Amino acid sequence: MRNVFDYQQIIADSIVNFTEKNGSGTLYTPVNYILSLGGKRLRPALLLMANDLFDGDLDEAINCALAVEFFHNFTLLHDDIMDSAPIRRGSPTVHEKWGVNEAILSGDVLMVQAVQLMTQCPDRVLRDVLEVFHVTAVEVCEGQQMDMDFEKRSDVSIEEYIRMIELKTSVLLAGALKIGALIGGASKEDADLIYEFGRNLGISFQIMDDILDVYGDQNKFGKQEGGDIIENKKTYLMLNALELATGSDKDRLAEWIEKDNFEAVEKVTEVKKIYNSLDVRNHSESVMNKYYEEAMSNLKALSLSESRKAPLYSFSEQLFRRES
Amino acid sequence: MRNVFDYQQIIADSIVNFTEKNGSGTLYTPVNYILSLGGKRLRPALLLMANDLFDGDLDEAINCALAVEFFHNFTLLHDDIMDSAPIRRGSPTVHEKWGVNEAILSGDVLMVQAVQLMTQCPDRVLRDVLEVFHVTAVEVCEGQQMDMDFEKRSDVSIEEYIRMIELKTSVLLAGALKIGALIGGASKEDADLIYEFGRNLGISFQIMDDILDVYGDQNKFGKQEGGDIIENKKTYLMLNALELATGSDKDRLAEWIEKDNFEAVEKVTEVKKIYNSLDVRNHSESVMNKYYEEAMSNLKALSLSESRKAPLYSFSEQLFRRES
Repeated sequence: MRNVFDYQQIIADSIVNFTEKNGSGTLYTPVNYILSLGGKRLRPALLLMANDLFDGDLDEAINCALAVEFFHNFTLLHDDIMDSAPIRRGSPTVHEKWGVNEAILSGDVLMVQAVQLMTQCPDRVLRDVLEVFHVTAVEVCEGQQMDMDFEKRSDVSIEEYIRMIELKTSVLLAGALKIGALIGGASKEDADLIYEFGRNLGISFQIMDDILDVYGDQNKFGKQEGGDIIENKKTYLMLNALELATGSDKDRLAEWIEKDNFEAVEKVTEVKKIYNSLDVRNHSESVMNKYYEEAMSNLKALSLSESRKAPLYSFSEQLFRRES
Repeated sequence: MRNVFDYQQIIADSIVNFTEKNGSGTLYTPVNYILSLGGKRLRPALLLMANDLFDGDLDEAINCALAVEFFHNFTLLHDDIMDSAPIRRGSPTVHEKWGVNEAILSGDVLMVQAVQLMTQCPDRVLRDVLEVFHVTAVEVCEGQQMDMDFEKRSDVSIEEYIRMIELKTSVLLAGALKIGALIGGASKEDADLIYEFGRNLGISFQIMDDILDVYGDQNKFGKQEGGDIIENKKTYLMLNALELATGSDKDRLAEWIEKDNFEAVEKVTEVKKIYNSLDVRNHSESVMNKYYEEAMSNLKALSLSESRKAPLYSFSEQLFRRES
């Protein structure tokens, strides 16, 4: 069985083939640009791995893998407009480079190309695959909406936060795995289990991302320490702190959230002190681990030999070895 | 056989059913809003008419009719952002009412709901229907891109203009007809002919729209006379005038196009004089008629009795009776 790097290479090559066919017109140049920025190609790699797990044919799954990657890039393209983000994967975002109108329209055509690619799967699973894909696509939009709504709210619960990251991040990982499994010929039970594996792994992964923002090795992680704290982002850690804080911790946290003028480093240091006094890191890690363990037991329950599942175990481990 | 008004009523009722299920969250309120603004529902009505023409079952076609209408509204929603349009069908546009971010995201989910609805067609035509729909959807994006590109260009040819309106307007009418015919059980030949009928009718219709902007009865047409002239829009008439004008006509036309400060009524009157001296109305009407006649001969070539086609003949006539 191939490993994740093999899949990433196959996907990269297929994307180059596709973008060459797109040509260089005004509409497709930004499409080709965002697709060329790379990224980890996790979603299509997972789709191909799931397909392989059930002895599926790579040729039958590759277009659906591209579809998932195209859909993901479509959401990035439009999310970057909504977030006014200047940079994506170290390069200027599409709306920075070509303007908002171009970014909207190129995103739209990329979305259409995604659904077009997704239909290129075998007849025997066409309806099931499209059903998973469309439900997932709607959910991803709903997740982005929740995320935008949260920015304007001060009463977001941890339960709502988990639901938001589930929709915004996890369901696409889960959907990719399920689609790959369906094409590979998995039973309904196994397809549902691998979906649950992806859903739990994705939630766990997003909580790790929140933890790493504050406690990660910034040299290796490559982001500004405490970026989420500086921006008052409602992360798992922040919501957990807001829930736990009482007395002076509560007052100081509220003060830092409301402050408009501050030294970034000072804010991060002070908020981190509050997190530490509330043991927020441990709480977050234990929830992260809970979802990770759930994912592992989903994987374990699949009706295949454990050795066959090795690539997915090893993929999961690698994913969580980012901080070291 | 039902007439166009019957179909419009069926579609209106189905849309109400659908939007009730969408509920009233932040994401779906703008979706339901744009769908509730009405409009002529031409595209879904044509889909149902084509289906009926070949003795198809309404229940098998209604979701695809909605899909076409949803897709059309998705393009309107995003086009309105790109055009900074404040008003759509007499009401504030979505981005005016809820902001650009909301309009982008609600458009996105509307697009997903469109593709989701389109898959609800019978298995026997699923692949063919999706193929037509996705190709059409890509083409509509390409048409919008050409339209945006044209704004920045001064050398647009009439041939390019026809191609642009074909992509931006006609192919969706054509695609709707073809999808309806396929669901109704039409042969490949008939499905292609009805597509051509829609394509030619759509081009003809758009040229009529250009003519009516300048020569229509504004009381009945309900728009500002010469709105396209005021905005220097590259319509069929303007491109035709630019092609034909020589000497002082050419200089005056160029002057009016370049002028930044002008009285709207004066500009319209003066440009209209140039159009008249170049016989632009007649030229445009003869091209409009050429496409209309093409459409009629496509309709005539369908392998059905002429009496069976009566609703489509009468629909076409009504469409072109807008100015009287």
